[in-house]
Amino acid sequence: MTKNRLEAFSDGVIAIIITIMVLELQPPHGTNAADLAGVLPGWLRYALSFVYVGIYWVNHHALLDRVAKVDGAVLWTNLHLLFWMSLIPWVTAWAGEHPMAPVPVALYGVVLLLCSVSFMLLSWRLDVETGHAMAWGSRKNRISIALYGLAIVLSLWYPPLGALIHVLLAGYWLMPEAGVLS
Amino acid sequence: MTKNRLEAFSDGVIAIIITIMVLELQPPHGTNAADLAGVLPGWLRYALSFVYVGIYWVNHHALLDRVAKVDGAVLWTNLHLLFWMSLIPWVTAWAGEHPMAPVPVALYGVVLLLCSVSFMLLSWRLDVETGHAMAWGSRKNRISIALYGLAIVLSLWYPPLGALIHVLLAGYWLMPEAGVLS
Amino acid sequence: MTKNRLEAFSDGVIAIIITIMVLELQPPHGTNAADLAGVLPGWLRYALSFVYVGIYWVNHHALLDRVAKVDGAVLWTNLHLLFWMSLIPWVTAWAGEHPMAPVPVALYGVVLLLCSVSFMLLSWRLDVETGHAMAWGSRKNRISIALYGLAIVLSLWYPPLGALIHVLLAGYWLMPEAGVLS
Amino acid sequence: MTKNRLEAFSDGVIAIIITIMVLELQPPHGTNAADLAGVLPGWLRYALSFVYVGIYWVNHHALLDRVAKVDGAVLWTNLHLLFWMSLIPWVTAWAGEHPMAPVPVALYGVVLLLCSVSFMLLSWRLDVETGHAMAWGSRKNRISIALYGLAIVLSLWYPPLGALIHVLLAGYWLMPEAGVLS
Repeated sequence: MTKNRLEAFSDGVIAIIITIMVLELQPPHGTNAADLAGVLPGWLRYALSFVYVGIYWVNHHALLDRVAKVDGAVLWTNLHLLFWMSLIPWVTAWAGEHPMAPVPVALYGVVLLLCSVSFMLLSWRLDVETGHAMAWGSRKNRISIALYGLAIVLSLWYPPLGALIHVLLAGYWLMPEAGVLS
Repeated sequence: MTKNRLEAFSDGVIAIIITIMVLELQPPHGTNAADLAGVLPGWLRYALSFVYVGIYWVNHHALLDRVAKVDGAVLWTNLHLLFWMSLIPWVTAWAGEHPMAPVPVALYGVVLLLCSVSFMLLSWRLDVETGHAMAWGSRKNRISIALYGLAIVLSLWYPPLGALIHVLLAGYWLMPEAGVLS
Repeated sequence: MTKNRLEAFSDGVIAIIITIMVLELQPPHGTNAADLAGVLPGWLRYALSFVYVGIYWVNHHALLDRVAKVDGAVLWTNLHLLFWMSLIPWVTAWAGEHPMAPVPVALYGVVLLLCSVSFMLLSWRLDVETGHAMAWGSRKNRISIALYGLAIVLSLWYPPLGALIHVLLAGYWLMPEAGVLS
Repeated sequence: MTKNRLEAFSDGVIAIIITIMVLELQPPHGTNAADLAGVLPGWLRYALSFVYVGIYWVNHHALLDRVAKVDGAVLWTNLHLLFWMSLIPWVTAWAGEHPMAPVPVALYGVVLLLCSVSFMLLSWRLDVETGHAMAWGSRKNRISIALYGLAIVLSLWYPPLGALIHVLLAGYWLMPEAGVLS
């Protein structure tokens, strides 16, 4: 299978993930500004997830740019990443509805952690195929994995602290000077 | 990243936005013509949003046609536009269910305003990259932004006036003689 | 805009329409075979709509194959077709839930009628652009439009008769010997 | 119609199927770990369906790689496969909610069986077109069809046995040494 097909399919799945999340965002029940304020936490969580899926889309491309062909192992390592990403709308809905509850916020972090681990697995697999040194991509990825783990623990103790780490890590990945894959 | 990938991803997201809006359109509860008439306001709002997303799709292409390559800043300016567009189904559902309520109709206008501002930002960013004069696209865009702002204020006072401006502005963008980007 | 972009966007929208219909298909409430039988009418209506969207996809391609470039008028005539097609999931859900109610079944026919009229408009527009005689595609299309109209009237009197015409017309379009566009 | 168009449309539909399944996965009602445990069966069924759709995506490509052009019969044989695949989210939701109920688990197996039969029909149709011996692809397919049939019967007697066969067959198709189409 050529790389183009894999990229097109991944782009399709990522485009759907980033868009259907809004279906989980219920309109307010009433019609006052106060009702609107009530959905603000869910809305902020939605915005954060949108940024995260965008980050994965950008980095997924930078990653695939380094290879010319893919084999069955890459297909499944990639589907593994898409699986965990596909759960982002689900944990966004749960954590968005219960922003102060430890388990939903921690589970959001668990899914982000598993996305990050899957991305590292995919980059490692692509490195094996292309004979690269397997060093690139890992430092930023490893820092993130450690911080996602910390966010899970902190969320169980005091959820806003976990949410703060989720926001800071999104900002870390958005910084252009840090390089897309360094 | 080449422009093709950005266009394909944007097309995918826009195709999903324009299509999933219908999932928010609940079937009537009863089976009489009167029940059908009850969902008419939501249906009209759906039709209006469909036209708006179509307008953005057409103009997005005209905009991207002017550039050959894109960088990280363009990717994120584009994702910023897609983010506000992704909220169109949500405000369509809310304003469609409560066509005479000030806050939902005003919020619909806020999202249209932010889409318009995002589109202007994207066109400005692309102009910077290609060294253009940054003048094109802005007059029609600036008029729209002013009118979206007016629609927000009017919606809070008397919602049908805001809705009228939303309809008129869609018609303004549909007029071929006005030029796609002038 | 090149034809490829229009085709890719239309393919995306049609792929989403044909797939999200299943989201309107509620799982049975109970877990017995009798509960499953209760959702059978909705399921049959879903299968019929799937076939109709498939027919439009196949014919849309045959139609677009005849042209090389598209202009703004074609873009909007095409979006007009996609708009009525986007309502198929909505009327499928309503008519599927109330298979013996006149208004939902008639409305299903109204949407099919408007899809057919939109398809004729698109083929007429493409004929104008390419300088064709505007004769092709119209006979089969005109017969369908007349029968969709008949189905609407019959549905208001006795819904299963309307549903029968919907099924027969789908079969008519599926027959390969009738030619895709004749 | 060229093969590319068929592949792009199928990829789009499969990408949507694999992604919208998560919309049927309701967030837990409460916010405790016990509430999360309550949705575990649905989540496991979701993961299994994700793997199955992934398997079909990988094998669909391997199948289409063997042909250069497609005709109307292939289009409809392919849409027939996509139809049964489109029901996977629906049976996933029902069987995921009622993991110990015979009819939902058996119906899940019925849909898998019909997907497998559709895949065999498509491979047979493609063999006819290309003049191949019609032998390839069928052994693995035939074993699966027999086991899906067995799973249906066992599900009606004791659902976990059916689920076990569903899991084992997914593993069988994941094994790389078994060859994608042998």
